[in-house]
Amino acid sequence: MLNPPLNRRLRMALIGGGGAGFIGKVHRTAATLDGRAELVAGAFSSDADRTCEAARTFSVDPHRAFASYTELLQTELSRPEDERVDFVSIATPNWLHFPMARAALDAGLHVFCDKPMTTRADDAEELVRLVEASDRVFALTHNYTGYPLVRQAREMIASGELGEIRAVRVNYIQGWMRGVQPDATPPRGAWKDDPEKNGPAATMGDVGTHAYNLARYMSGLQPVEISAKLMTYASGRQLDDYGHALVRCANDALIMVTASQVTHGRLNDLAIEIDGEDASLSWRQEEPNVLIVRRFSEPQHIYDRHPAAGYMNESGRSACRLPAGHPEAFFEAFANVYAAAFDDIVARIIGGEVTAPQYPTVYDGLEGVRFIEQTVASSQANGAWLPLSH
Amino acid sequence: MLNPPLNRRLRMALIGGGGAGFIGKVHRTAATLDGRAELVAGAFSSDADRTCEAARTFSVDPHRAFASYTELLQTELSRPEDERVDFVSIATPNWLHFPMARAALDAGLHVFCDKPMTTRADDAEELVRLVEASDRVFALTHNYTGYPLVRQAREMIASGELGEIRAVRVNYIQGWMRGVQPDATPPRGAWKDDPEKNGPAATMGDVGTHAYNLARYMSGLQPVEISAKLMTYASGRQLDDYGHALVRCANDALIMVTASQVTHGRLNDLAIEIDGEDASLSWRQEEPNVLIVRRFSEPQHIYDRHPAAGYMNESGRSACRLPAGHPEAFFEAFANVYAAAFDDIVARIIGGEVTAPQYPTVYDGLEGVRFIEQTVASSQANGAWLPLSH
Amino acid sequence: MLNPPLNRRLRMALIGGGGAGFIGKVHRTAATLDGRAELVAGAFSSDADRTCEAARTFSVDPHRAFASYTELLQTELSRPEDERVDFVSIATPNWLHFPMARAALDAGLHVFCDKPMTTRADDAEELVRLVEASDRVFALTHNYTGYPLVRQAREMIASGELGEIRAVRVNYIQGWMRGVQPDATPPRGAWKDDPEKNGPAATMGDVGTHAYNLARYMSGLQPVEISAKLMTYASGRQLDDYGHALVRCANDALIMVTASQVTHGRLNDLAIEIDGEDASLSWRQEEPNVLIVRRFSEPQHIYDRHPAAGYMNESGRSACRLPAGHPEAFFEAFANVYAAAFDDIVARIIGGEVTAPQYPTVYDGLEGVRFIEQTVASSQANGAWLPLSH
Amino acid sequence: MLNPPLNRRLRMALIGGGGAGFIGKVHRTAATLDGRAELVAGAFSSDADRTCEAARTFSVDPHRAFASYTELLQTELSRPEDERVDFVSIATPNWLHFPMARAALDAGLHVFCDKPMTTRADDAEELVRLVEASDRVFALTHNYTGYPLVRQAREMIASGELGEIRAVRVNYIQGWMRGVQPDATPPRGAWKDDPEKNGPAATMGDVGTHAYNLARYMSGLQPVEISAKLMTYASGRQLDDYGHALVRCANDALIMVTASQVTHGRLNDLAIEIDGEDASLSWRQEEPNVLIVRRFSEPQHIYDRHPAAGYMNESGRSACRLPAGHPEAFFEAFANVYAAAFDDIVARIIGGEVTAPQYPTVYDGLEGVRFIEQTVASSQANGAWLPLSH
Repeated sequence: MLNPPLNRRLRMALIGGGGAGFIGKVHRTAATLDGRAELVAGAFSSDADRTCEAARTFSVDPHRAFASYTELLQTELSRPEDERVDFVSIATPNWLHFPMARAALDAGLHVFCDKPMTTRADDAEELVRLVEASDRVFALTHNYTGYPLVRQAREMIASGELGEIRAVRVNYIQGWMRGVQPDATPPRGAWKDDPEKNGPAATMGDVGTHAYNLARYMSGLQPVEISAKLMTYASGRQLDDYGHALVRCANDALIMVTASQVTHGRLNDLAIEIDGEDASLSWRQEEPNVLIVRRFSEPQHIYDRHPAAGYMNESGRSACRLPAGHPEAFFEAFANVYAAAFDDIVARIIGGEVTAPQYPTVYDGLEGVRFIEQTVASSQANGAWLPLSH
Repeated sequence: MLNPPLNRRLRMALIGGGGAGFIGKVHRTAATLDGRAELVAGAFSSDADRTCEAARTFSVDPHRAFASYTELLQTELSRPEDERVDFVSIATPNWLHFPMARAALDAGLHVFCDKPMTTRADDAEELVRLVEASDRVFALTHNYTGYPLVRQAREMIASGELGEIRAVRVNYIQGWMRGVQPDATPPRGAWKDDPEKNGPAATMGDVGTHAYNLARYMSGLQPVEISAKLMTYASGRQLDDYGHALVRCANDALIMVTASQVTHGRLNDLAIEIDGEDASLSWRQEEPNVLIVRRFSEPQHIYDRHPAAGYMNESGRSACRLPAGHPEAFFEAFANVYAAAFDDIVARIIGGEVTAPQYPTVYDGLEGVRFIEQTVASSQANGAWLPLSH
Repeated sequence: MLNPPLNRRLRMALIGGGGAGFIGKVHRTAATLDGRAELVAGAFSSDADRTCEAARTFSVDPHRAFASYTELLQTELSRPEDERVDFVSIATPNWLHFPMARAALDAGLHVFCDKPMTTRADDAEELVRLVEASDRVFALTHNYTGYPLVRQAREMIASGELGEIRAVRVNYIQGWMRGVQPDATPPRGAWKDDPEKNGPAATMGDVGTHAYNLARYMSGLQPVEISAKLMTYASGRQLDDYGHALVRCANDALIMVTASQVTHGRLNDLAIEIDGEDASLSWRQEEPNVLIVRRFSEPQHIYDRHPAAGYMNESGRSACRLPAGHPEAFFEAFANVYAAAFDDIVARIIGGEVTAPQYPTVYDGLEGVRFIEQTVASSQANGAWLPLSH
Repeated sequence: MLNPPLNRRLRMALIGGGGAGFIGKVHRTAATLDGRAELVAGAFSSDADRTCEAARTFSVDPHRAFASYTELLQTELSRPEDERVDFVSIATPNWLHFPMARAALDAGLHVFCDKPMTTRADDAEELVRLVEASDRVFALTHNYTGYPLVRQAREMIASGELGEIRAVRVNYIQGWMRGVQPDATPPRGAWKDDPEKNGPAATMGDVGTHAYNLARYMSGLQPVEISAKLMTYASGRQLDDYGHALVRCANDALIMVTASQVTHGRLNDLAIEIDGEDASLSWRQEEPNVLIVRRFSEPQHIYDRHPAAGYMNESGRSACRLPAGHPEAFFEAFANVYAAAFDDIVARIIGGEVTAPQYPTVYDGLEGVRFIEQTVASSQANGAWLPLSH
């Protein structure tokens, strides 16, 4: 944080968060964790009762809770600037991300948006143009980039501690689709199997893009081309629920992305291994407070998330809220994405210095959507290598 | 939560939190995590500049920030009731807990207080009387009781799933004292080696009481007598930094409490193992999202913190904020202590039903102080068994 | 063991074991672990001094130690049958496996041979014909199949406990090539980078075949076609040291084989995950005494290697030598391959019942060599899917 | 090994090994693992049929198998010296150790004996005198001292890498007594609850002595006095099955020994933590191939059992048989105790140099028996501190 703190809390509107899913609530908790923002308005659900109930739960003034995001935005625009929300967080099913983000940018608001950013690359490119034409912050909540030891690893790699990066293996393994009852009424998350609403890839879009983004964020490798194989194993589905995507990078490094949502009993098991010429490392989301670093013939080094330790770098240390041994987890990582974008928003509000964004941006969003499209295309073309520029 | 939610946020004052320590900030984050409370006032430091700076950091109105807790309390009392703070959180060095808690109760406020509750058992008994005479909530932040799988285990044991409990081994191992420079100026945490300010036991008071409280909370065992051995290994210290305390319980079960702050490289390693007639279990604070349950000749069962799974009981499930695989950690556990006490505060505000407290109370505080005193006394008496009623 | 024990120890000759490598010594230890065989002869090295020294180390009569395997075989053939060795173990560099195995079969001996079985598929097919035409046992030391919990898993899968198998992910990650000095004189293991001596794939042949064999052995899946990508990252090499091979099976299940010998600090990290319709499991060679079995919404089950526990099946139980908690490891697994083949040898000696082999055979050897060849061919053809019948 | 190898295998007689227990078989496997010894005779059981059957299993000449150890010894004495057994391994219930060891020493044989060495300290002292008066090797199979990383740790501590040792916590936790049916006929291991046959402490004698010995072996601490608490939790028992023994050492260091055989689902969980002024370490028998070394504010160091790595010392390296990543386990550790004593036996046979024994000796045996007696006495005296010189 180069700039002085704002002398007020940022005002947040949340779109989504009123349904059965958990991610809307996560946005609220993450955005307000450090007391830098306050949830003051929302379109929590397209169902009027639900949006009211959510307003109560979130202690939001019922007059600022709507069943329609357009109504929300119009009303906010009509408020005086010092009451109007500063930013909108979009936590809705995939096909709504694009129109909502566009409308929020049109309204002059900063935007936080869930991934995948859009269901089509065309829309993603349009969003890039809109963001570039605005002076607004657009942050994509690839929340796993917010873990302190992920940032620690990223800086270690960027500074050359691992030597040239040769290979990345990143797996995102879940099993929840084993619990989905195909004939449940109403069909929970049914939009996730509808390509119009979800986009062309399900599991590879839902978790594969997180894995790919994490690999790119940590390693800094430049993708060139991709070969993929997607499968559908759960019964009654049309979209993928399992797959591999192999990415060849500019220096001939390989990134192997493996994604599953049909592995019994696996929860949210995002794990990454990175091989460099001089050292290798491993990290796993379900045990996020340790990073394993290995060098040939040396003892394995376990880096604890330990802000007071000399081995932590600035990226890692500054992402910590608690001393070592007091575990941090999902909310704090999510909040770190918010915190980095807040710095950027504050800089724009106070006219301070704007630095290179430390959070995933609209360009990461575009890259994710292209990754999905080329994964599907390669799989349909029997694993043909297709270009994947970023 | 049996009662309806309050239609406003509870108003919080924080005493402490303006210094180098982290626990004051933790109280703020934990109390506000769910949006049920708001930090509006404080005596963050006895240093006026620091208290101002903390007010800015916490986005607290500078007119409600004081360098003296008595001034804070007087000013709040002078406010209209619908602006006045509802509760005070005390996050200061040990010897201040008692006068501050007494003053807060006198002011008619609910109190959250760090442990150990007081430095002397007499004071603790006095506090019990004050709380009993008031209609205020007094919560002691034995925060480790807030972890979902700790509560899961507690209910499992209470309902007899482990059979009669025979033995508990609880270790709290840290190493930070190895990093303390005895001649540092100013001496960081120097009060922790001063029996007047700290109380008679250092490590056994600081972390041993957490360990003992956790054993009691989870197992429900009734202590009878104690035999202890305390040591001082770090140079330049007068109080203990290592020790064992063995507690014999009513059914002849044993609780072994081991505490260290001089074990190189160990962070905040609170770990507990409980042996029952029918099953045993293990849990570790640094990997709080799993609980291991074992039965003779069966596979080990790893319980994930998994609110949607059938194996979770109500105590465990209701303490979760996130689905399985999305790790929760220290802040959420701390927030669960606040949440349980908030339920109690709300019940008193709205005149609703008050149930048995699910959070550590003034009685746990008294028990902790007695545990400390008898540990020290037994160690001085060469390990003699001394009574430890609760 | 259906047949009665032999009333004598089997007589073993070892080819190899006199050099710097460790695998020859492993064969001796594994073959004699249970006292069912005795090492009595050998061609331990092509260097006469080394073969003598090895004879001393192994307590082998120097008159039965030779620098040439042909001399060894001729001399043994000249001995009376009740002194002659029963079997030969071949622990030499790859290109020697084929001529040595052929000569040993010609001499009427049973054969244990290291993998990969040959450097060319033609030779492997020839060996299949020779074994079929003989009445000799031919065992390929895919030693990882000998671990009790690998056998446990195999029987669980075969009996349907996991439901239909959908996906396998098997990784074999090492880092030792990071320690190879390209200009060392004499070049240690230099034959491993010479396609004539090593075969067409290095890392995929050395460890990838183990991984693939393990996947096949445990899952029982029937391979159909393969797509692969091999890379060479270490400097000064011509053969692969990193790669992925994706195998599509008859039921559209996928097996992903990942092999590396350039990952700093990783030792011998063979790990497998198998996803079935009804359950999934994981096992790792470096912690071989546990098998993790997971079912949706149930606690994770950790199966200890626990021969007295009811959850162990016959395959798992019968492969144990020690009670649970007394760890078994590499030697015992290797010995289990020997033990299963010994049962077969004894059956032939005493004219007892010969059952389906429980150890890897010449057919597994052929399959491994084909796997190598098609992996290389697919990688050269830009990942084209090539047939991989077994 | 300073001396040249013997040009023959040592001849072993085994007393025990014919019953349902596993430890006799372990002695055979461990003693012969490296091909330095051969099992040629035995008194495998006091039951004649069983001893015959065991002879067949072990491929031992039936004429050298007896139902009586005195007969065994007499017969061996009558053989010419170059056929006579060199050593006897005693793997029988506790009360037989003393008369058997005495008889074997009287017969001029070297002795390997299970622990606890005797059931009474008087007998242990007598055995010390007998060994001192003989020129025979007496090795006590405290097998856990044979693990490579235990020896690594011992040398690290002896050389000062951890600084002065302050505290040891060693736990030996099992659960098998939960599976014992009190009314089983015949009562399996019934002698273990008979003080005449077992000695005065059951669990503290059976596993507590292993734990205590390991602490002493690794740390080198000098015991001064002991305070203990023993409990009996399993129904129908008279001897202890759970307990704690706290040992104060010469430099005021503490060793806490915790032993249980009533903890459901725990197998053979011997785990040790050692705190020094400069570093701490942890090791666990069930995962014996890693040693964790920690220093304040540094990454945790995981030492793999890695004979080629520069961080291994001579003690650790020389105890390895396999390269890193190829796990070693229980048998190999047991065999290392044999190997060290074999070096000593060979030195005596060839008249070579005898060095300080690297294996547990008769003095360790005496110390273990005294530990048991004082543990029981202290527990009976309400935890009184009793002397524990070594």
